[in-house]
Amino acid sequence: MIAYNEALELIKNEIEKLTLYKEEVDLLDSVNRILAEDVIADVDMPPFDNSAMDGYAIKFSKRKSWNIIGEVSAGNFSSFSIKEEDAVLITTGSKIPQSADTVVPVEDVVVEGKNLLLKGKTFLKKGINIRLKGNDISKGRIALNKYTKIDSKTIAVLASCGKEKVKVFPKLKAAILATGDELVPITKIPSGDKIRTSNTYAIYAAVKEMNYSPLMLGFVKDNEEIIQQKIKAAFGMNINTLITTGGVSVGKYDFLKEIFEKEGVKEIFWKVNIKPGKPFYFGVYEKKAKKILVFGLPGNPVSALVNFYVFIKPAINNMFHQKHISSITAVLQCDLKKKDSKRHFLRGILYEENSEWKVTSGFSQSSGNLVEMSRANCLIEIEEERRNPLKGEKVKCILM
Amino acid sequence: MIAYNEALELIKNEIEKLTLYKEEVDLLDSVNRILAEDVIADVDMPPFDNSAMDGYAIKFSKRKSWNIIGEVSAGNFSSFSIKEEDAVLITTGSKIPQSADTVVPVEDVVVEGKNLLLKGKTFLKKGINIRLKGNDISKGRIALNKYTKIDSKTIAVLASCGKEKVKVFPKLKAAILATGDELVPITKIPSGDKIRTSNTYAIYAAVKEMNYSPLMLGFVKDNEEIIQQKIKAAFGMNINTLITTGGVSVGKYDFLKEIFEKEGVKEIFWKVNIKPGKPFYFGVYEKKAKKILVFGLPGNPVSALVNFYVFIKPAINNMFHQKHISSITAVLQCDLKKKDSKRHFLRGILYEENSEWKVTSGFSQSSGNLVEMSRANCLIEIEEERRNPLKGEKVKCILM
Repeated sequence: MIAYNEALELIKNEIEKLTLYKEEVDLLDSVNRILAEDVIADVDMPPFDNSAMDGYAIKFSKRKSWNIIGEVSAGNFSSFSIKEEDAVLITTGSKIPQSADTVVPVEDVVVEGKNLLLKGKTFLKKGINIRLKGNDISKGRIALNKYTKIDSKTIAVLASCGKEKVKVFPKLKAAILATGDELVPITKIPSGDKIRTSNTYAIYAAVKEMNYSPLMLGFVKDNEEIIQQKIKAAFGMNINTLITTGGVSVGKYDFLKEIFEKEGVKEIFWKVNIKPGKPFYFGVYEKKAKKILVFGLPGNPVSALVNFYVFIKPAINNMFHQKHISSITAVLQCDLKKKDSKRHFLRGILYEENSEWKVTSGFSQSSGNLVEMSRANCLIEIEEERRNPLKGEKVKCILM
Repeated sequence: MIAYNEALELIKNEIEKLTLYKEEVDLLDSVNRILAEDVIADVDMPPFDNSAMDGYAIKFSKRKSWNIIGEVSAGNFSSFSIKEEDAVLITTGSKIPQSADTVVPVEDVVVEGKNLLLKGKTFLKKGINIRLKGNDISKGRIALNKYTKIDSKTIAVLASCGKEKVKVFPKLKAAILATGDELVPITKIPSGDKIRTSNTYAIYAAVKEMNYSPLMLGFVKDNEEIIQQKIKAAFGMNINTLITTGGVSVGKYDFLKEIFEKEGVKEIFWKVNIKPGKPFYFGVYEKKAKKILVFGLPGNPVSALVNFYVFIKPAINNMFHQKHISSITAVLQCDLKKKDSKRHFLRGILYEENSEWKVTSGFSQSSGNLVEMSRANCLIEIEEERRNPLKGEKVKCILM
């Protein structure tokens, strides 16, 4: 059994070794993908000096009144040569006429026919309200770094850099297989000691939420031969990741570890000192140029999903250098029980109240309780050395 | 000009009146959609009393040793009748044998052949480590409410409730049109006073990030006739929302407001007391059963995107009852300038340090600076009455 941090490092190490070829996609298809190249500004941004305001372009002097000689709007530049007594109406973003050097905002002037008068107390400064060419970024500089996530903000930069097509990392492809004699399809009413399969759906959704490609292999009974066939078939597929649930504990039907070994998977570790989800397995399958990460999650639905959140998700985010806000420190609103030296991940409800983050945890924390889990919005992480954290203490909450 | 809060309320009112028919999708296709029905548990969860631990099922007494008479694993129930001296090996989640009432965890026992011995100081309590039938939820109760977002946690509940197909709300369909004489396609190098079109890409991505359906109409020059044709055509499409950029200010090429009126759009408001994005327009087009929300964003790329984040996104989230964590209060790390009575939305970088949220804002805040905006992760909201907030003061940061 190894510690959580060690396990996470081992996964990160292996996941970083995956070879990911770049693919090129149309800009509109790149939303939510990760940039696989540095993108250079091929023009200055803005490409010309322009007005930061709706106002009047003038040549700075001590004057307080001007003659309006014309108008410039975005995309409708006229070549004015402005003298000290002239002013040109200009809209935000429009190119500054030659020899103008200052923009007086509309709020600060009174217009009377062709006369423009500065309002009483207005103080003008030379050069105000002009956005200089290249102020946002100069031509030739890096506008967006490799590993940037393409979203509404960054796609605007890509468009401005003329990137009709962008190089992005391919989506990780993860096959998902559940095992367990207790499982029945969701279309059946479970009887006796059976339950409906839910893990495959949960992990499928977890992979899809990260914008990767899940491949649903369904579930199989705890039959060594059948499981082995399924695993062998999965390794023949075009995937980077295989995620299984069940069969990694120590019961007489826990065949997965053995089957992985038979199929040539190199075990990196098995069992981590955490709760829930202790029997977590991680290995690597390699054959020629092919490399598949193998994650064996426990069969218990809450444990399986917690394992995904605390091992697989951070490791993938790390691989793609994604650093979003993923946790919030909050003040416990109730005492929590923790008597052992494991790292615990407890379901909680996190909220901000009077500028302070608080977290409650009224749940039974039973690792089978999916409805309870569905009502939580975070995992409260309690480190190994910590015992029974009390109301009022601070805890780290992983958003989910 | 109206206040921000008033504008937001007016949009919410109209957006709530949209008629959204439910659609039924396969469970696997429901990820990231919003549930349009309450989902009832059609079975107890768990469906039977089961073990919360790997351990031994016993009939509680004062004994400290037992004979192991068999084994139960998940999905492999055997009908044992347990006497006081008997114990049955049981794995987590497995059905508790008849007449057993307590599970002793594996950690608390020593096994010697068929003999099971309780470890020295272990204190047993009747009933421990058993998850009772219906403990998570009882049959007939609501497991998930309408408006729940379907994610990895909630899909597991849907699977457990046997929902092979689920009723979800349809995706909002938003057509996006940019206007402006200054715009050139992204494939061109802009010259003179032109810039590349970026708004359509940004708004397209913003709609897609929310998991709605964007429809790209591209951009047109500031030509009244052409814009009118485009708007008329858009109203003929199967959309709920039209989002335009540009043409809503007060320049001589700002035709949009007039065209909307000609085409029968009822103006709800125009101009909001905020910065950036003041000339924001909102109206409603209705014809027979058809209702289309019309959002006229300013042409300035930063203003357009800020308008989307502070008006359209919260209104849609409100309509679908989505209450994720969307803002964090943080301590300003620098002074900010704000001299007017508008509500400001400034680009900032938010981070947690020593359990405290902090926000910096080293940006020029020029509303044209897209590269700067792409490096921000929040909008710092400064209310109308507030002036020049100082380093050390608390501010609301909207995540983006």
